[in-house]
Amino acid sequence: MANEKECGSVHGVYSRLQSLIASFLSKNWRFLEKAWKLGASEPRKVIHCLKVGVALSLVSLFYYMRPLYDGVGGTAMWAVMTVVVVFEYTVGATLYKCINRATGTFLAGSLGIGVHWVASQSGEKFEPIIAGIPVFLLASAATFSRFIPSIKARFDYGAMIFILTFSLVSVAGYRVEKLFEMAHNRVSTIVLGTSICICTSMLICPVWAGNELHLLIYRNMEKLADSLEGCVAEYFNGDGTVKTSDDDFSKKLQGYKFALNSKASEESMANFARWEPAHGPFNFRHPWKQYLKIGAAMRNCSCCVESLSSCINSEIQIPEFLKKNFSEGCMRLSAHCSKVLKELVVTMKTMTKSSTTDLLVEEMNFSVQELQNALKALPNQLISPHGSANDAKVETTSKQVIVPVIEIVPLATTISLLSEIAARIEGIVDAVEDLADLAEFKPATDNKPEQSQCVMDKTDDETMKVLQKV
Amino acid sequence: MANEKECGSVHGVYSRLQSLIASFLSKNWRFLEKAWKLGASEPRKVIHCLKVGVALSLVSLFYYMRPLYDGVGGTAMWAVMTVVVVFEYTVGATLYKCINRATGTFLAGSLGIGVHWVASQSGEKFEPIIAGIPVFLLASAATFSRFIPSIKARFDYGAMIFILTFSLVSVAGYRVEKLFEMAHNRVSTIVLGTSICICTSMLICPVWAGNELHLLIYRNMEKLADSLEGCVAEYFNGDGTVKTSDDDFSKKLQGYKFALNSKASEESMANFARWEPAHGPFNFRHPWKQYLKIGAAMRNCSCCVESLSSCINSEIQIPEFLKKNFSEGCMRLSAHCSKVLKELVVTMKTMTKSSTTDLLVEEMNFSVQELQNALKALPNQLISPHGSANDAKVETTSKQVIVPVIEIVPLATTISLLSEIAARIEGIVDAVEDLADLAEFKPATDNKPEQSQCVMDKTDDETMKVLQKV
Repeated sequence: MANEKECGSVHGVYSRLQSLIASFLSKNWRFLEKAWKLGASEPRKVIHCLKVGVALSLVSLFYYMRPLYDGVGGTAMWAVMTVVVVFEYTVGATLYKCINRATGTFLAGSLGIGVHWVASQSGEKFEPIIAGIPVFLLASAATFSRFIPSIKARFDYGAMIFILTFSLVSVAGYRVEKLFEMAHNRVSTIVLGTSICICTSMLICPVWAGNELHLLIYRNMEKLADSLEGCVAEYFNGDGTVKTSDDDFSKKLQGYKFALNSKASEESMANFARWEPAHGPFNFRHPWKQYLKIGAAMRNCSCCVESLSSCINSEIQIPEFLKKNFSEGCMRLSAHCSKVLKELVVTMKTMTKSSTTDLLVEEMNFSVQELQNALKALPNQLISPHGSANDAKVETTSKQVIVPVIEIVPLATTISLLSEIAARIEGIVDAVEDLADLAEFKPATDNKPEQSQCVMDKTDDETMKVLQKV
Repeated sequence: MANEKECGSVHGVYSRLQSLIASFLSKNWRFLEKAWKLGASEPRKVIHCLKVGVALSLVSLFYYMRPLYDGVGGTAMWAVMTVVVVFEYTVGATLYKCINRATGTFLAGSLGIGVHWVASQSGEKFEPIIAGIPVFLLASAATFSRFIPSIKARFDYGAMIFILTFSLVSVAGYRVEKLFEMAHNRVSTIVLGTSICICTSMLICPVWAGNELHLLIYRNMEKLADSLEGCVAEYFNGDGTVKTSDDDFSKKLQGYKFALNSKASEESMANFARWEPAHGPFNFRHPWKQYLKIGAAMRNCSCCVESLSSCINSEIQIPEFLKKNFSEGCMRLSAHCSKVLKELVVTMKTMTKSSTTDLLVEEMNFSVQELQNALKALPNQLISPHGSANDAKVETTSKQVIVPVIEIVPLATTISLLSEIAARIEGIVDAVEDLADLAEFKPATDNKPEQSQCVMDKTDDETMKVLQKV
């Protein structure tokens, strides 16, 4: 009996252990799977990791090879540290840290040596006090400067390095006799470390923060255009089946969320991009700040698309004949909105001013006007019990439908949100046009990409129609 | 003549120099003014700067005082570095960095010594290779791990320190004979530095990330409530003069923007808060992640308020009599929404479950229903040309007004956005109630704060009325 019990408890412990190990393994396996997926989807991140390895190996060479080792001295450790701390994913971030580190070290080093000289002149008794007070004051002041937004954006790391170097020099200065030699060593190793970092980061598959920001902005714009068009199309065409079955489609509808949530990454990229030298189509003084304005305008617009997408899913259904009446107008408006956005995407992609944007915006505004006019024409159909003279609606009005106002509410909401979206898209257009002016985009030429040309032809036709109607 | 010319050019240079200096001074003056304002508005930031100074002075003591100096050795420099790098504004951030630094150093140090031992056994020829390959591999792997979101949130700094220490140990191991002594020194100085940081940060006016997050969330909720109520009130009451003259009021209307834009700070604070020990009313395992959900629900709601505030400013004006008809209902709804939000604020502030929230939500939903019913009742007034039997509207209907549908659009939009906002507020309520369950808020007692009691009485009255009506 006791044996059985023991056997049972052993068995219980064993099975519990087994399940514990299994859950641990499966957890680890899932983690590895996730990591693998991340690596496979963004191979540049894997390359970055290898670049860090290469940079560290290069720095280690200075330690292992005797002639170089003697040249740089025992402080080659600082070079290793510089590489580890300074090497970042984008070139801009690496340059930001390198320049901040070098400047901070140089400024704090010279100040520290000055303070040390003054302290050493004042006798052994007062030396610690005279050396200590500036550490307290400067460290406090530099820490405070890191709270000021304009300094935080550009010199946060530099301020930290300033505090670090100043404290090290003035504290160590009391002991280390060879202060100048130490300073010289520190500077030379930092130059060594930063130059290895900059070379590795700029020469092997460079990732430019500016380029990333440029891509991020116009990709988000594309997603916003797709989701806006998809939302409206689904509302007027969808029978509810598309939404659940097609995973890609529902993902597309959520595209506006990318624009809504990328504020932080836009800001950090814009901060890093301004440190980058000219690369690809971008000059050194490319107006990166303007991208933030475009991003803000897009967020503004996405907010409205978000409200639209949830109002569209409301419970109150529009009567079928109204839906039919307005579906064309609404879908035309959303198509025009999306066309404007996509033209802006082309403008940014090719970095050429577009000659069709203004026309497309006019068309968009004309569709807004058309929708409003259609709404204005509505009361005749809804109130008069004897039908209007309008031929197209005979079959609906002959049924003598009196639509209660409540059933118009979702339609009215959709239309006024669409109008608001159109107005906000004009904000995006303005921001992109400002960018085109500031960055001196090439003016549109005749040998433009075919797509734009085709848009041009099509819109010309439509405008003619519009003008004839007016 | 030449003299005159020279005199003129000297004068020109002088005046240009003068204006240059003046602009430089005024720029600096403005900068200082801005810094002063920042310091005056957030005195805790100034205190933080002084704390950094104190911590650095404490560490310097170890250098200046001989007995201590001999104890820690020449590597006390590492202690200074630890203090500068690790000391952050909030306790959570400081703890995060301290624990990451200590763990990373310990792990990498032991691994490095192991690798060094293996390398030293393999003969002088292979030593650099056997020591170098792990540096490359581990640095790449650790760098990659920093891209994985779950690791980035918790161990980003630790991974960097791991790379740093491992490279230093295995590179320096080749030269420095006293490797164990170096490791011991490094660990003891880091312990010294981190303990000084932790003590200073926790004992002198501590700033808890968790507390800050808690405050941020409920303050944003308060602002959201105010701006929602203000928006609607301004639309229905305002004659346009309030908007331009009263600066405070227009600031209040923009309150929803705080909730919209604080995603990044919420996330970083929640990340830091989980490192903090129990403080004030918060336990060690306080559900900080739930705050992110509340924040997301609030952003969701703010998005709708944003659309509402711009739709309200549209050009189309609602006819006066409709405005009068609906102003009461809309304002009642917005007041109820704001009341629900403010009850949630009280719940979070006092950390007690509220007994009135459910009632308030019911009231809010009832106002939504009332508004919808009022809309449903509309067609009778608008379509019939002979007036309805409704007494209250006799004076308007007697004028035989036929309101075109287009003029109902802003009202319809306002109402459907308000309903959507009410629905999203329910999302916030759910999130806060989940928090109350997870964090085990005290249940509401009889001796609740007066404000809540007063709300209770008032709502009871209203509910009775509502029930009588139904």
